Amino acid sequence: MPVDVPLIERKQREARRRIVAAAEELFAARGFAAVSVSDIAERAEVGRTTFFRHFGDKQEVVFAREQELLDLLAAETLETDGPDDRSASAALRALEPVLLCLCERMTADLDGYRRHVRLVEDHPELGAREGVKMQVVTERLTDLLVAQGWAGGTATFAAEIALACYRTARRTSPDPATLVAATRTAIHHALGLGTR
Amino acid sequence: MPVDVPLIERKQREARRRIVAAAEELFAARGFAAVSVSDIAERAEVGRTTFFRHFGDKQEVVFAREQELLDLLAAETLETDGPDDRSASAALRALEPVLLCLCERMTADLDGYRRHVRLVEDHPELGAREGVKMQVVTERLTDLLVAQGWAGGTATFAAEIALACYRTARRTSPDPATLVAATRTAIHHALGLGTR
Repeated sequence: MPVDVPLIERKQREARRRIVAAAEELFAARGFAAVSVSDIAERAEVGRTTFFRHFGDKQEVVFAREQELLDLLAAETLETDGPDDRSASAALRALEPVLLCLCERMTADLDGYRRHVRLVEDHPELGAREGVKMQVVTERLTDLLVAQGWAGGTATFAAEIALACYRTARRTSPDPATLVAATRTAIHHALGLGTR
Repeated sequence: MPVDVPLIERKQREARRRIVAAAEELFAARGFAAVSVSDIAERAEVGRTTFFRHFGDKQEVVFAREQELLDLLAAETLETDGPDDRSASAALRALEPVLLCLCERMTADLDGYRRHVRLVEDHPELGAREGVKMQVVTERLTDLLVAQGWAGGTATFAAEIALACYRTARRTSPDPATLVAATRTAIHHALGLGTR
């Protein structure tokens, strides 16, 4: 049986979807700099007020997918090694499936992800915005660990190391099809750092 | 014997120093948003052209010190464990003294560093700019490792882990007086990840 979503929420989701699709088409056709919020709203057939109900500015639309994943992240739970192991290594092992799942979802639409990466690389202000999003991811991962009983300092450390693994994968594997595997490899390298 | 710096270079350095000092005074007195490039140039007694010869925009002045450290970083050399060990652990050990030296220099003027941190925290656009600077630090550290014979992937990984340690220290030790010690501790935790 389909979940019963109230009409107003369905309409809002539909408007958001149309805004994202319109922005992508316009960015691809004219380039990011040449597109205004008004252009996007017009093509999506929504008012500017509706645009700003969903997104703070034009840049934010570029990270619509990341934001949805961030919202999902808040509801994640971690599987832990055991009730007693609250070491940094156990924290990193607990984050691994969550981080890989994020990478999988981000690259589920490979062409869309490639367009996104190109857009961010071509515009320094979008690169800066992406850095801020990564900071938010780190904070959410830290919160997940703290909720499972890790000490704040250990949780912060493990979350930063997890993000370092993701960044390594992004920099060393330009092909998004290998992002998940490269992130997994980097995490395993991190977990073996002291042993080599 | 003092090093003989050509007159034109001495004048340029002096102009840069005056711009940075003027910007700091104005930001402290009026707040970052209320200060324009013209205000800074006027107080520093230089023309706007001179301002833009040294800095791309008003935000860049906030990171003047970071930029100088970045320029120094390019000239660093690494002390390595031995001619043969090109593992990720050895890479992180080689980066440790360089990273700690950067932290020391950044926090040498504790009050100045505290003002800087407060300014960056209060202005999201400066936070984003700082993220970009950190990305550049990571790339420079990667280059240092590659120059010493590390493989590109291992170098990228070790540099990202090193920066993760610095970020951990920044987030867990709000007192800049402890930044060096906290970064060192995080690096040692990273080097012990596989052993616990």
